[in-house]
Amino acid sequence: MEMDLTTLRAESRRLAVELVKVLAARREIVNKIAEHKKTLGVEAVAPDVEKEVRRAMLEEAAKHGIPEETINRIATIIFSDAVEQQTSTPKQKLTHFDILRRAVELQKNGREVQRLEVGEPDLGAPPEVRHSAANALLEGYARYIDSRGLAELRAQIVNQVYEKHGFEITPENVVITPGGRFAIYLAAKTLLREGDELLVIDPSWPMYRQVAPFVGARSVHVKTLFEDGWTPSIDAVERHISSSTKAIILNYPNNPTGKILDRTTFNKLVELATDHGITVISDEVYADYVRDGHVSILDNDLGKQHVLIQSFSKSYGMTGYRIGYVIADKNLVAKMASIIGLVITCVPEFIQRGALTALGLRDAPKEYAAIMMRRMEKAVHELEKIGAEFYRPDGGMYVFPRIGKLGEDAMATAFELLESKGVAVAPGSLFGGYDDFIRISLGAPDESIVKGIRLLGEFIAEKGRARG
Amino acid sequence: MEMDLTTLRAESRRLAVELVKVLAARREIVNKIAEHKKTLGVEAVAPDVEKEVRRAMLEEAAKHGIPEETINRIATIIFSDAVEQQTSTPKQKLTHFDILRRAVELQKNGREVQRLEVGEPDLGAPPEVRHSAANALLEGYARYIDSRGLAELRAQIVNQVYEKHGFEITPENVVITPGGRFAIYLAAKTLLREGDELLVIDPSWPMYRQVAPFVGARSVHVKTLFEDGWTPSIDAVERHISSSTKAIILNYPNNPTGKILDRTTFNKLVELATDHGITVISDEVYADYVRDGHVSILDNDLGKQHVLIQSFSKSYGMTGYRIGYVIADKNLVAKMASIIGLVITCVPEFIQRGALTALGLRDAPKEYAAIMMRRMEKAVHELEKIGAEFYRPDGGMYVFPRIGKLGEDAMATAFELLESKGVAVAPGSLFGGYDDFIRISLGAPDESIVKGIRLLGEFIAEKGRARG
Repeated sequence: MEMDLTTLRAESRRLAVELVKVLAARREIVNKIAEHKKTLGVEAVAPDVEKEVRRAMLEEAAKHGIPEETINRIATIIFSDAVEQQTSTPKQKLTHFDILRRAVELQKNGREVQRLEVGEPDLGAPPEVRHSAANALLEGYARYIDSRGLAELRAQIVNQVYEKHGFEITPENVVITPGGRFAIYLAAKTLLREGDELLVIDPSWPMYRQVAPFVGARSVHVKTLFEDGWTPSIDAVERHISSSTKAIILNYPNNPTGKILDRTTFNKLVELATDHGITVISDEVYADYVRDGHVSILDNDLGKQHVLIQSFSKSYGMTGYRIGYVIADKNLVAKMASIIGLVITCVPEFIQRGALTALGLRDAPKEYAAIMMRRMEKAVHELEKIGAEFYRPDGGMYVFPRIGKLGEDAMATAFELLESKGVAVAPGSLFGGYDDFIRISLGAPDESIVKGIRLLGEFIAEKGRARG
Repeated sequence: MEMDLTTLRAESRRLAVELVKVLAARREIVNKIAEHKKTLGVEAVAPDVEKEVRRAMLEEAAKHGIPEETINRIATIIFSDAVEQQTSTPKQKLTHFDILRRAVELQKNGREVQRLEVGEPDLGAPPEVRHSAANALLEGYARYIDSRGLAELRAQIVNQVYEKHGFEITPENVVITPGGRFAIYLAAKTLLREGDELLVIDPSWPMYRQVAPFVGARSVHVKTLFEDGWTPSIDAVERHISSSTKAIILNYPNNPTGKILDRTTFNKLVELATDHGITVISDEVYADYVRDGHVSILDNDLGKQHVLIQSFSKSYGMTGYRIGYVIADKNLVAKMASIIGLVITCVPEFIQRGALTALGLRDAPKEYAAIMMRRMEKAVHELEKIGAEFYRPDGGMYVFPRIGKLGEDAMATAFELLESKGVAVAPGSLFGGYDDFIRISLGAPDESIVKGIRLLGEFIAEKGRARG
């Protein structure tokens, strides 16, 4: 028998209300679970449980032809509702930007501060780049262009990839982004959906753990240890892979440790990811800052599974220009370009022309790298003098010494170091709970690095005496 | 009797699956409704029916102490899922960028094309701006700066707002963005969550309907009519407000119609939004392109509920510089700045210095506006000659004439116009299903506009004859 529109609408309304009733019943159960957990002292968020429930929901949905996206969105809402039901503790709010802000404040008040907290080289862009971008500006290269980026620039990147890695890509594999951060955001936004997981090897740059929730996903962290020379155990990585894992970020030379993986480990990680159908996001923005060479994802075959993140900030000192790029499968690149088209239109052409000039400068990255490696040697020498333990960096622009637990709270200790000695650093807690470590940036003049580490030595000694 | 954790978890999982089953049952009913509607020729979205269902769901939720927000978000998701079920027609894939691409292709092949499809003025930045930005580049103003933007630039915006609107804001109400698009994205990302609704008055710029799903929300559209002079009915707007509505976008001078609301209607809309606790996002990027003056959200009191979107692209011809700003409540501004910090770090300082110079040029916006208004007069004159109906724009850089239904598909007709007459325009279908209309952009030289409209006249006449 056919129902009429009014009857059908009444039925659809009844079922919508029924949906709320089921939700209410589930919330009651969740409340009981929360009470149990409180008694047992267990955390509110149980990712494995959530994952299993999501999977069961999707399985049921598939039977009825309900789009995955609809269920994923509803699951996310009921899970976040459940967590809100269960928790009430505020999250840690201070970051190394707060240290930066305080350092600037102290300097403005006439205080001498060794600024070893910033992840920005102090080198600036080569004069050729400045002139090229300035001329492009004067000549009016400032209209909307292709969201993927300037054809000439992408072509030049294609050539450089072939020269460096003997690997053939096409301009369709390249998209120009407003900086490395945006490149990572694009990778996360295109690879991860609501409820997906991003694997991160700690210690790691804070952005990785921030970008996952920003796109509705979750970051899952694999710890590595100083004692293991910051080399991840393949088994440990594999143990953290779930059916929700969609991508893993590799960042070598590493921020903050300066580690570069040996080729065998690197390749094993890539293979592991490929076997599990997981995309490798390889953030290689420090690739030119190396002592002996670098292992790149581009040395392997670039299949659908690889996303390279690159930037002009480090190799060419173009930090404030905000320009970087992604190399990936062309379908992914097309998606990224359409996001750029939606939210930014394009990276300014005059900046892209500056970057094109930069790529023609074969010596600049080497000169900049030489400066960083010279500073690295000085930092290493000073750290040895104060008796700190650290992994001797293979590259990058940071050293990550162990200073021990000097106080209850790593961030508070970093602030104390800043206030008492005028040395600004990033506490290890920011890189995944490495409270015993601090990150020293080499983006400052040599004198500042040397002086900063000496003052750090004094600070550690004084704290030690005060304790003991 | 107490259940243990395992039993409780199994029960919570069962209820999650039960939720999907109820949803599946509801979808079946919705399918039947869709068939009925197709027979009756009724539209898929029925705001009044949706509202009644939502109300019933909230009523049930209240009995169980479920937060309204949870139910609102779930309701929006099941409604948008239902609409997708009902409108089984594939989504239109071609945009005016495809027309742009084809136009460029034809030009490259030596064909003369009147380029009236692009929303970009052809004016370029004033020489003072170019020089200022170029000098800043040469002087090395290219390091990371405050994500909120350069203090001097924000201070200057504060001054200008006071001068223009007699309204006091502080630099904490201002955040500099990489263009107007990013400003709108930031507004959407900070104001809307999964399952929220964004109210849009059609005809409207396509970005508004794209940004809502991009942040997990849904855009709900209120139609306005040519016959009503594109003035929205306050009642119609109110009918489309639901408890999930978090923001409404106003865009006057309007893209594509050139409409500016009278102050009474504008204020009524703002009041309506305020009464319902809805934020008004006022996109005023065309504010300087006006015949007699402009109604701004800043003329009203700027409370928490208002977000102004502004850009340097139109007033100063700085399209490819990618710089704009938001004026809003300081908490919202802080959130937006932290998003910029996360995904872009900051807008390049040399660009911000160019913008600072631009703000000091009092005549440039007037000169640019005069050019646009001169072109507007010419376009109006030519459109009258070919006998097209249109609303005479109060401002903006577009005319939106009714050309009638010249074919089955508006986009196909636009391509036909391009191929046969060498005239590129944006079909009205892109602005919310206004298939009888086309958008003519005034971002092209006067001759091009005049010639393009004459050729359009020929095209319409020929199509008319062909039909008999």
